[in-house]
Amino acid sequence: MILTVTPNPALDLTWRVDRLTPGATHRADAGALRAGGKGLNVARVAHAQGAPVLALSTAGGRSGIAFAADLAASGVAHRLVQVAAPTRQTVAIVDEELGDTTIVNERGANPTDAEWAALFGEVVDALPSARVLVISGSLPPGAPESFVPLLIGTARDAGVPAIVDTSGPALIRAAEAGASVLKPNAAEVADATGIGDPVGGARALIALGAELVLLSRGADGMLAVTADEVRQARLDAPLAGNPTGAGDAAVAACAVLYAQGVRDVDTVLRRATAWSAAAVPMPLAGDISDEWADLESRLVVASVLREEEP
Amino acid sequence: MILTVTPNPALDLTWRVDRLTPGATHRADAGALRAGGKGLNVARVAHAQGAPVLALSTAGGRSGIAFAADLAASGVAHRLVQVAAPTRQTVAIVDEELGDTTIVNERGANPTDAEWAALFGEVVDALPSARVLVISGSLPPGAPESFVPLLIGTARDAGVPAIVDTSGPALIRAAEAGASVLKPNAAEVADATGIGDPVGGARALIALGAELVLLSRGADGMLAVTADEVRQARLDAPLAGNPTGAGDAAVAACAVLYAQGVRDVDTVLRRATAWSAAAVPMPLAGDISDEWADLESRLVVASVLREEEP
Repeated sequence: MILTVTPNPALDLTWRVDRLTPGATHRADAGALRAGGKGLNVARVAHAQGAPVLALSTAGGRSGIAFAADLAASGVAHRLVQVAAPTRQTVAIVDEELGDTTIVNERGANPTDAEWAALFGEVVDALPSARVLVISGSLPPGAPESFVPLLIGTARDAGVPAIVDTSGPALIRAAEAGASVLKPNAAEVADATGIGDPVGGARALIALGAELVLLSRGADGMLAVTADEVRQARLDAPLAGNPTGAGDAAVAACAVLYAQGVRDVDTVLRRATAWSAAAVPMPLAGDISDEWADLESRLVVASVLREEEP
Repeated sequence: MILTVTPNPALDLTWRVDRLTPGATHRADAGALRAGGKGLNVARVAHAQGAPVLALSTAGGRSGIAFAADLAASGVAHRLVQVAAPTRQTVAIVDEELGDTTIVNERGANPTDAEWAALFGEVVDALPSARVLVISGSLPPGAPESFVPLLIGTARDAGVPAIVDTSGPALIRAAEAGASVLKPNAAEVADATGIGDPVGGARALIALGAELVLLSRGADGMLAVTADEVRQARLDAPLAGNPTGAGDAAVAACAVLYAQGVRDVDTVLRRATAWSAAAVPMPLAGDISDEWADLESRLVVASVLREEEP
């Protein structure tokens, strides 16, 4: 079973307008809502592809009720720790004419120590049945610094690899705690490590203790950086669509393979790049196109030469 | 008692961002919610100024629960007809740097015939205690054309004057039904009557059957148009702030005076213009500044000469 932890879940609200004009008033049909947060998107993708999944998160307040109802409707197995603070909301306004999306993300409220302990307890309870642990998304402001490394260490002790998709100082701590896989993008690597060159930053995360860094590069595909090599996968031609959720699909691909015991870097890189690309044509994060195998067959994979070497 | 009817209420959601950039992702604190809709703003203002009020509207779905809870917290006396469709939501994103607000208004769902009948029944029940009826705001798409004229006619039969703030074909029907006061802005008059000149359009509404048109003109103040005259009130200097809710405050002023039996056009025009201006410094629709009496004393009131006459 793939165990996902989403420490800062969100009720995602989406409205569609013809053309978004700042300062103007727009008419729209009723908005859509969805239980969101990166770890839940990972769980949705893996579940839709037939992998056993258990999604752990928190829910609180009126938004938490809507969040729990939507998650229940998704069919993804889950356990939600009840928290006092309302589940944060995100607002997406889709400009139908331009096709782009304007997003407002609430930062989220920090659970109490007892609520964090309850979430940790759910992970401990579920780890014996888990083949891989996924920790995905931001942490609420004020979250205990120890939470991510504690989860990774507890999973390691249980022989369960940890895949982590987060940013900021938590990315550094995840590397130090020995995460099996990190999935940052170039901006997140630069922000966390202070190293502008993405490959150099990824190598720094490996030096800290991570085994594999999957570095998503948008239309330029993905890099797999290990202590030994840098491999790149990219599509032969760019895809049109909505990249939201592409990173979560990459994490889902990685998690499904790790849960099957697969560790071959090229296999993981190819599947992660293909599922990531297959998320782009889909309107909602947490879905991938059935065409992913075709996309995987179109990938160009090569080693990246290290420029600083002869 | 002032009886307000809000046929298309809304749960108003507001988020604040530093600077709104279309297509970008923004961070925000938790959003605020408020039971909104023009008729409820009118009721809030009148209630805050000490006038007895009863607000009638509908509520449905999860958004309707939040709507009802916020309305209950406001202290405004109200009755809500339970409807099957969720209460519509509006989204406001405030740009803190520019100070402007981008709004997405859901159109709203049309109540069933039985639900419309139940709302009408609430009006009939409350009319014997009412001194004035206020019908404010849009109608949901597909609303029965007869609803607004039926309310106005029923109120007239009970000797209760009707103040109507709506737009589109409903504005025409309100005039035809003999509304005591209409409160459109220039764009709404032009849209409903097809007459570009606001005074000419207002006169057309009078010719159809309305007694008084209060024509809100933003920073240019307000016009009062009757069969006999056109009077204008404006502040001696413009006010900075948020004009959302200024029209509702004008309607509230008019309703409070009508409930006291006041019909003098200049008195109504001055109070409506003053309360409208007093809404501008307030962050939320449904509030007016305590400085309204000072603003009223600063108003310049004059007759508008009819250009087409010698």
